[in-house]
Amino acid sequence: MKTNPGRFFEDYRVGEVITHAVPRTVGQGERALYHALYPARGAVQSSDEFARSVGLPSAPMDDLIAFHTVFGKTVPDVSLNAVANLGYAEGRWLAPVWPGDTLRSQSEVIGLKETSSGATGVVWVRTKGLNQRGDVVLDYVRWVMVKKRRREVVVETHVPALAASVDPATLVVPEGLDFSRYDFALAGEPHRWSDYAVGEVIDHVDAVTVEEAEHMLATRLWQNTSKVHFDVGQREDGRRLIYGGHVISLARALSFNGLANAQFLAGLNAGAHANPCFAGDTVRAWSEVLDRAETAAPGVGALRLRLVATKGEAGQLRGADGKYLPEVLLDLDYWALIPR
Amino acid sequence: MKTNPGRFFEDYRVGEVITHAVPRTVGQGERALYHALYPARGAVQSSDEFARSVGLPSAPMDDLIAFHTVFGKTVPDVSLNAVANLGYAEGRWLAPVWPGDTLRSQSEVIGLKETSSGATGVVWVRTKGLNQRGDVVLDYVRWVMVKKRRREVVVETHVPALAASVDPATLVVPEGLDFSRYDFALAGEPHRWSDYAVGEVIDHVDAVTVEEAEHMLATRLWQNTSKVHFDVGQREDGRRLIYGGHVISLARALSFNGLANAQFLAGLNAGAHANPCFAGDTVRAWSEVLDRAETAAPGVGALRLRLVATKGEAGQLRGADGKYLPEVLLDLDYWALIPR
Amino acid sequence: MKTNPGRFFEDYRVGEVITHAVPRTVGQGERALYHALYPARGAVQSSDEFARSVGLPSAPMDDLIAFHTVFGKTVPDVSLNAVANLGYAEGRWLAPVWPGDTLRSQSEVIGLKETSSGATGVVWVRTKGLNQRGDVVLDYVRWVMVKKRRREVVVETHVPALAASVDPATLVVPEGLDFSRYDFALAGEPHRWSDYAVGEVIDHVDAVTVEEAEHMLATRLWQNTSKVHFDVGQREDGRRLIYGGHVISLARALSFNGLANAQFLAGLNAGAHANPCFAGDTVRAWSEVLDRAETAAPGVGALRLRLVATKGEAGQLRGADGKYLPEVLLDLDYWALIPR
Repeated sequence: MKTNPGRFFEDYRVGEVITHAVPRTVGQGERALYHALYPARGAVQSSDEFARSVGLPSAPMDDLIAFHTVFGKTVPDVSLNAVANLGYAEGRWLAPVWPGDTLRSQSEVIGLKETSSGATGVVWVRTKGLNQRGDVVLDYVRWVMVKKRRREVVVETHVPALAASVDPATLVVPEGLDFSRYDFALAGEPHRWSDYAVGEVIDHVDAVTVEEAEHMLATRLWQNTSKVHFDVGQREDGRRLIYGGHVISLARALSFNGLANAQFLAGLNAGAHANPCFAGDTVRAWSEVLDRAETAAPGVGALRLRLVATKGEAGQLRGADGKYLPEVLLDLDYWALIPR
Repeated sequence: MKTNPGRFFEDYRVGEVITHAVPRTVGQGERALYHALYPARGAVQSSDEFARSVGLPSAPMDDLIAFHTVFGKTVPDVSLNAVANLGYAEGRWLAPVWPGDTLRSQSEVIGLKETSSGATGVVWVRTKGLNQRGDVVLDYVRWVMVKKRRREVVVETHVPALAASVDPATLVVPEGLDFSRYDFALAGEPHRWSDYAVGEVIDHVDAVTVEEAEHMLATRLWQNTSKVHFDVGQREDGRRLIYGGHVISLARALSFNGLANAQFLAGLNAGAHANPCFAGDTVRAWSEVLDRAETAAPGVGALRLRLVATKGEAGQLRGADGKYLPEVLLDLDYWALIPR
Repeated sequence: MKTNPGRFFEDYRVGEVITHAVPRTVGQGERALYHALYPARGAVQSSDEFARSVGLPSAPMDDLIAFHTVFGKTVPDVSLNAVANLGYAEGRWLAPVWPGDTLRSQSEVIGLKETSSGATGVVWVRTKGLNQRGDVVLDYVRWVMVKKRRREVVVETHVPALAASVDPATLVVPEGLDFSRYDFALAGEPHRWSDYAVGEVIDHVDAVTVEEAEHMLATRLWQNTSKVHFDVGQREDGRRLIYGGHVISLARALSFNGLANAQFLAGLNAGAHANPCFAGDTVRAWSEVLDRAETAAPGVGALRLRLVATKGEAGQLRGADGKYLPEVLLDLDYWALIPR
């Protein structure tokens, strides 16, 4: 058997470290494609000149390029036989990715728990993305529900203790970043850290209707091999499921309108892909300010934000039953860096 | 209110200079995408070697990449509440854009005039695109019809005097350009400046059927945020209006077949987006030679060309009533540089 | 007549060398687009670091980028009036293409033969792709059926003698390539040259449903101007024919799953585009090991592989009548380089 059948639930062992295949060099081509695929307009990632004006050597790659690339490499080992992507926790972006950097991924299995059905189990992994110098650029936990090969196998339960959110004192600011002479006019909006109040909700106004070609171009670019994104034969309804990360990038890019100065992702507290997204859906986004924190870097503050992507017009998140409304696609809880 | 509602007619003042947001570094990724999005085959923009053979340091970015990038930045300040893009005048490309250059835009309001309905007004702006050294790379006038916020506000009329066409003596030839040893075989066609006669009409033969994903990828790449291009909910017919610049680039690329040696855009005399273009339309193009001029640069001549894009088979431009035929998408009047 | 009507059968002369137009510089942008358009995951082409670990200065461009670019340039001179692309032979990749290289193409007419109908003829060309230093990077023979302008013209028959397959002793290994310390874990699969047996068949499992925007983006990227790929008006059924090379790249990329270590294309023995491919088709692939050979380079072996692309589930190649089954899209016979 030369091809990869993927791992099943009983193939994982707590403590095992998996080296994921195919290191990937990312650069100006991936950046340009990111701008074509998503309405991203962050000034730091768009302009070498603007990046230099805030203390960086040049424009870094978008933080979600790092996320998608690192995530994509885990798919053949973690989610080829997954039924659902259940959550994220304890994510931190630890260093910018620069054009020309080569990324690779590794994951440690940190938890296992059978589901009550006996047909599946939940696997927790802590994934690290490393650059060519061995620096960890991204570190996050995710958990997925994976099929068992044989129902009768018993796997010892180990549920990891995970933080409810990333302690803002542990957020890492890119080396050299200095927002004290930040040009708000060139960045697109006047709002700084102190202008955002906890509890404030921002409707990002714009919307994008998604096409099949777009999400497949994106998902391939991250070398994500999950069949459901590409092959109409994978689902009974003949639809291709859009990679959840595509929705994250769409929503994050849409959030420019109201959060133009939230230039960096620094922490990933939690995330749920509440409902599937398909081509033809029109995606909108809104954000809620959950918390604020200072950092030691000059002029740099942090906002904790809930980013919600919806199709249609849903302004609410959950119904009376506490479940996500059917229009909600994404509920992401993250820390961003913004000028104070 | 954190999001940008756009300006309304009464928000503009003649003489005011608007700095548009988000400078953008363009490079090899944007060039590759341009070649994927449009059937562009100009030798100077395709090959570093060919560019060096005509006196340039390397292949410049396509002149329309400069146009779209500079234009896209004006949208949040000029056309977010626009009803129609009415015209262009006095456009000149003043310096090539090289991979790695960072472009930004600014516009001066040069004219205001209410329309008879009282619900809208026409805004004239002179937009400049600048690179990271502060050189103006592109300068053009455009006017748009913009909604008024309140009908009762009265705005003083100021209609700018605009040249009917750009004086060819003022066209700027890229520094160092020398067409005296131009390789016509490698460029793809034998026709030089003197082979084109005023009044000659060229049918560019080829056609492209347009897809939703293509025009949205393009329009996002230029960071153009106009909602009608992306969101099916913006129009009553549920169709996404294709960015007029996408049609310009399609038509210009199609015109390679018959105008392969018209390597540079130098002047923009006028332009009308005669009818909307939608996905599924099959776009063709024809050109008419309007004028010819010499330049001081070695071997470099200029042709004034009318470039017409159509859907379907229209060979005519206007009907008996003097109006554009419904098949006409674009009527563009420009100066190109071509070997003499 | 300013536009190119293309050559007809009687316009070719055996021995004539045609210089194809528009040299093209390829780089990081084209690489990123290749990864977005095809599920390509070869480690050598994905990672500068991995490429260096096998003795190369950096990641070369995918071998099929060279093929498509060189092929695309021949279209205006060879296949504008072609009825069918009949075959390939004697193809060899002779040097890697690096980001920043400029490719151009030339073809020698090596054979002519009228078909019995009298309305068409077969033209054989040997095409060479050259880089900016004049090195031949790719050399292959292809033959196409081309329309005659006038039935009554008689053209002398000259059928070239072509090798049934490329002698593996003549395959060229990229300079410096050393697979002796190859990292199979990072490359994605443990299988080496000696693990593949002649006669072995590998089902590559994955499938991709193709969209119009994708194949048009790809085909334009290679500056291939054949009208049938872009214009719904070219065929009576209103469908756009997908460029055969798009199917080659799709199938080659899908073959990663089972042939992850077949890192380089070295020889093209034969190829048939068995049936047309259209948007909406779901493409799968399987391979058969046809032969094995050693090379003089450290740790480098060669596999001769039949790569078959299908739509639907066809496992067979030909029916009882000896003809390709209707589900078969591509039957490609090539040599790949793989660690021994």
